[in-house]
Amino acid sequence: MEPSLTTTSPAEQDDFRQAVAGTLQQFLGGQKELLLDAAPDAAPLVEAIADLTAGGKRLRALLAYWGWRGAGGSVLAEPAVQAGVALELFQAAALIHDDIIDRSDTRRGNPSVHRRFEQQHRRNGWSLDAERYGQASALLAGDLCLSLSEEVFSGIGAEAAAGTPARAIFNRMRAEVMAGQYLDLLEEAAGPGRPVEAAVDRALQILRYKSAKYSTVHPLSVGGALAGASAELLDAYVAFSLPLGEAFQIRDDVLGVFGDPATTGKPAGDDLREGKRTVLIAHTLNHCTPAERDLLEAKLGSPELSDQTVEELRGLITSSGALAAAEQMISERTAAVDEALAALPVTADVRNALGRLADSAVRRNA
Amino acid sequence: MEPSLTTTSPAEQDDFRQAVAGTLQQFLGGQKELLLDAAPDAAPLVEAIADLTAGGKRLRALLAYWGWRGAGGSVLAEPAVQAGVALELFQAAALIHDDIIDRSDTRRGNPSVHRRFEQQHRRNGWSLDAERYGQASALLAGDLCLSLSEEVFSGIGAEAAAGTPARAIFNRMRAEVMAGQYLDLLEEAAGPGRPVEAAVDRALQILRYKSAKYSTVHPLSVGGALAGASAELLDAYVAFSLPLGEAFQIRDDVLGVFGDPATTGKPAGDDLREGKRTVLIAHTLNHCTPAERDLLEAKLGSPELSDQTVEELRGLITSSGALAAAEQMISERTAAVDEALAALPVTADVRNALGRLADSAVRRNA
Repeated sequence: MEPSLTTTSPAEQDDFRQAVAGTLQQFLGGQKELLLDAAPDAAPLVEAIADLTAGGKRLRALLAYWGWRGAGGSVLAEPAVQAGVALELFQAAALIHDDIIDRSDTRRGNPSVHRRFEQQHRRNGWSLDAERYGQASALLAGDLCLSLSEEVFSGIGAEAAAGTPARAIFNRMRAEVMAGQYLDLLEEAAGPGRPVEAAVDRALQILRYKSAKYSTVHPLSVGGALAGASAELLDAYVAFSLPLGEAFQIRDDVLGVFGDPATTGKPAGDDLREGKRTVLIAHTLNHCTPAERDLLEAKLGSPELSDQTVEELRGLITSSGALAAAEQMISERTAAVDEALAALPVTADVRNALGRLADSAVRRNA
Repeated sequence: MEPSLTTTSPAEQDDFRQAVAGTLQQFLGGQKELLLDAAPDAAPLVEAIADLTAGGKRLRALLAYWGWRGAGGSVLAEPAVQAGVALELFQAAALIHDDIIDRSDTRRGNPSVHRRFEQQHRRNGWSLDAERYGQASALLAGDLCLSLSEEVFSGIGAEAAAGTPARAIFNRMRAEVMAGQYLDLLEEAAGPGRPVEAAVDRALQILRYKSAKYSTVHPLSVGGALAGASAELLDAYVAFSLPLGEAFQIRDDVLGVFGDPATTGKPAGDDLREGKRTVLIAHTLNHCTPAERDLLEAKLGSPELSDQTVEELRGLITSSGALAAAEQMISERTAAVDEALAALPVTADVRNALGRLADSAVRRNA
């Protein structure tokens, strides 16, 4: 389940959301036509992207929109819609590849893209290995999706041309999120041998790169930059969106261990099985006994974790004070978000819209 | 070993090659600095890209250059160098992901990028699975490389801006090569159940998308388009480069089965183990007996193919007339290349340079 951002959103936001959905559908329809003309068998690649991008919270597109409006961009203008579409396609590309890396079976309530292709292989009784076929096809679907994101972004034209601030932010976003995902992998692998005192700092750095900047900071900034935001406004956007992105991800980390499978759509304790070294885990490592630390290190990242072990680790995370520390970090960041929001030099409409987005990103259960 | 394109190349081409290498190095050095500032641990991602792009034949960059020069672009001009760098980075991204899909151990005489990260994991005695770490890291390195390719291409500026022919070709190139690679996977999986009479046509379609257009047609065209080539010149470029790209890939397919491991750097019969359904295999399926076809279908794509079985399949490919048919296809295309080259409305210098590139692409043993 996705948090229902729509219920309290203003009509303008709903209109923007519809414009993004319509433009996405039209653009991907055109891409499919091009392929059908030339290589009809390749259509499933575009279909997988179209189905995936039909869902999602559109958080990044919406932040870009209000960033644009806050900098004086006009209502439902084309560059903002295009930026929203480019960000949604970029996010979809990242999710497709992430799900391969994390071996996730589902995404947005449907089979993940590699599982989708794997299932197609099995259904048709094709030759060679179905799992490998699924992963390879999804790798290519992600590459295509990444390319299409860029195609849409460069299609914005003058506002996003070479040398503009918007282009620089978009470039930076891509490099940073890939670097952040790599840091995440590296910490899973090399973390156990690294100083435990610095574990929270390392987890925060990963979180900033792989998630916070890319989920909130860069989308809001790119929207602002497209509308010609001043350096001061862009700084004010960062002051609001960086703690927001951090709180958003720490909430995600808490849900990844304590979330209710019925609302998150993921198995209980999924992050523990994946071995993610989140802020929550870093706090635990820092505050538990050496014996408990050995237990946690031994269990983290083992795919066959029993429900009972998950329960045991949850107990450890709670009793060590790590859960409370993570909730404390969310609270501090939420306070910083509120303060920065109040100080944003934007109209009341934009402030209200950003406030609603911030609420739904941080106070959620899925 | 790479074919030595340098020995007969003119000084101008050597200068261009050096300019591409220098710009690549400088650009990637800058990217590494940016990462080192912010997230020093992520530097290996850029280092892997820098090492991979230090090698290679630079066929695509050189074609772009002579396409540029043939359309009146000036000697060693910035847009041509940038386009060359963007194409080299795009090619590197495709190779990194290809090597994951094909499980290739080596590339350009070094470990493939996923093996490089896997080895780093083992050397350091890190936690969790080394192979999975290697593949996940390489997936991210490829994504970063793809993004950097785009960053450089959009950095060209006005000549490659939204709505220009060069941008349209670059977009088209990316979508087509990904579609072509998917068709290749699909044919490996679904090919055995498809009409054998159409196998050669299907193999040719795959070859056109995943290789010919992207290795020769689009690079030459994008160079021309950047220099403002007329539609007539771009058509003449295609008449030259499409048969060239096809001959280049069919030569590759022949080397993939019959190449000498000492010169190709790949194990004998590697393509047979990977189950690639090339034009060579399609011809064999078309012309052998039903019993032979069953044998070929049973062996194709099994990783544990013995050297003796490889020898047996080579015998079948030769005795069925498929090898001769593939060589015939190369000859026909080479003739078309020569004819189109003679008719190209370009200066003698450009014609000579393109002729040398064509020679080295088709008449090679590695």
